[in-house]
Amino acid sequence: MKALITTVPFADKNRLPLDLLEEAGIQYLINPLNRKLTELELSEMVSDFDVVIAGTEPITDLVMSKAKNLKMISRVGIGLDSVDLLAAERRGIEVSYTPDAPAPAVAELTMGMMLTVLRSAHISNLQMHSGEWHRFFGRRLSEVVIGIIGVGRIGEGVLGHLQGFGSPKIMVNDVSIKDEVSDKFDVEWSSKEEIYKQCDIISLHLPLTGKTKNMIRKKHLLSMKKDAIIINTSRGGIINEGDLYKVMKSGHLSGAAIDVFDNEPYDGNLKTIDRCVLTAHMGSMSVDCRTSMEIQATEEAVRFLTGETLEGLVPEEEYEVQRQGL
Amino acid sequence: MKALITTVPFADKNRLPLDLLEEAGIQYLINPLNRKLTELELSEMVSDFDVVIAGTEPITDLVMSKAKNLKMISRVGIGLDSVDLLAAERRGIEVSYTPDAPAPAVAELTMGMMLTVLRSAHISNLQMHSGEWHRFFGRRLSEVVIGIIGVGRIGEGVLGHLQGFGSPKIMVNDVSIKDEVSDKFDVEWSSKEEIYKQCDIISLHLPLTGKTKNMIRKKHLLSMKKDAIIINTSRGGIINEGDLYKVMKSGHLSGAAIDVFDNEPYDGNLKTIDRCVLTAHMGSMSVDCRTSMEIQATEEAVRFLTGETLEGLVPEEEYEVQRQGL
Repeated sequence: MKALITTVPFADKNRLPLDLLEEAGIQYLINPLNRKLTELELSEMVSDFDVVIAGTEPITDLVMSKAKNLKMISRVGIGLDSVDLLAAERRGIEVSYTPDAPAPAVAELTMGMMLTVLRSAHISNLQMHSGEWHRFFGRRLSEVVIGIIGVGRIGEGVLGHLQGFGSPKIMVNDVSIKDEVSDKFDVEWSSKEEIYKQCDIISLHLPLTGKTKNMIRKKHLLSMKKDAIIINTSRGGIINEGDLYKVMKSGHLSGAAIDVFDNEPYDGNLKTIDRCVLTAHMGSMSVDCRTSMEIQATEEAVRFLTGETLEGLVPEEEYEVQRQGL
Repeated sequence: MKALITTVPFADKNRLPLDLLEEAGIQYLINPLNRKLTELELSEMVSDFDVVIAGTEPITDLVMSKAKNLKMISRVGIGLDSVDLLAAERRGIEVSYTPDAPAPAVAELTMGMMLTVLRSAHISNLQMHSGEWHRFFGRRLSEVVIGIIGVGRIGEGVLGHLQGFGSPKIMVNDVSIKDEVSDKFDVEWSSKEEIYKQCDIISLHLPLTGKTKNMIRKKHLLSMKKDAIIINTSRGGIINEGDLYKVMKSGHLSGAAIDVFDNEPYDGNLKTIDRCVLTAHMGSMSVDCRTSMEIQATEEAVRFLTGETLEGLVPEEEYEVQRQGL
């Protein structure tokens, strides 16, 4: 019984996940490259493991074809864009995930980014560290119109945090109107296009699917206000990175905060734009949320390897998303 | 009738304050140096003005002695540490201020700083802009103990915002226990020393007075947790800047966010510490708050110069603070 742990860092703040594996007599290997693996690296590494405790590296049909013993994938996190669910299904590989654990941490990071970028605190910080003093004007949350695209666990968390900031005007969008959101929060359901046009802050809380990939391209960015702010703490690829660079380079948008990228580790040209906050896919990286994710994903792997009933199986609708789109 | 406007920027986003002066037939000069004036610069500039619409530059007895026509000081903002109220009283110079206007903007910037520093987003942003990828662990507000020292208008604003973030444990301190704060919020009244010792985030919302000047020195900083975070959006001088530098340089404190400095514009050695967020005294600089402050202070100056009753006179207790301490 062998588990490959690809996500890093792992068990860095809390050893419990490793204890769980050891107590169950499961051998494990933690990704020795200590960064996100490519498809090729993973396919070479995965050969004789029974389970992968997985990050966001691509687990494709090719990878699975090289993993003769693989019977289960336990995703540390919520996004499933990295896993070819249909290939897993064909090969009889079970897939579980931890959809609730990361949400609170991602929602808080999003709030911090909104407040920082609204006040140009990130630019002032860069300037002050090089001895330059300029007092930037900013805006408060209650002065702006906020657009939340995707009101699942994380989007709802952001709506909750916003309640403590007066009554900002909030426009929301999702695949369908959710009454439980309208009941709890004072929001206006709108099309994405209206949100692009009218909002001062636009924050994305969507999965990466065939429908959302490249959802925001040059024309959408240019339809936003010149001083709009865009925030992406969901998945790279939803905003076209090259287009975001070009549009910001041209002076459009007053700021952006991007935590997720097409290729991670990211080292692309957005780094030349000071008014774009960049963070290293840290949305879920609060000690408590990350620990919950690791423990939940490891417990699920142990359940599988010890013949217990799984509790975090990916629901059918996630397969349906990939069947229809990606 | 001539008004000297020392605070900059002024009327940058909204011309109304200048319109008010022009309609009342009041000549004005906006600080031509376009930065915070020294005592000497101000004393040379102020000579024949009747009113100063003032920023945070020192309005000392010396300055007043050079201002033969000065009859009124209208402070754009809340802090009075820069104005020698007792000298003004002796010379029959009236002093007004705008204590409510800046509070919402300062409280929001403080929240942004808390969320940013807790997640090391400022460090990741610096690193990512130089092509370096490291995923930092952080903490969520509901995982930490938050200390608020000073629960006036701004401290209360921060408490309000915190309500949207689960139920963080909050310790508060002020010169006396305020029942209206205890009634509204779930807080624990504590000594400053207990806050230093127990809190993970310590945020200052105090005026600069004889009592608060150098209130936090080396020994206080060292009594804080090794991974504590300190935030100062109130006034420079309350934390001893040199001590903060030395203590952070030694590796103590996991982060800090400093918006206010002994000497502004600031260009000191805190800029060598990446985990210290520095901003250029931008607490009140949201367009709405700054505009309210400028309009209120200008209206007050116009009232004075046109013989109307003043509405923003500094209350007696502020004189008492200076009589007792500074």
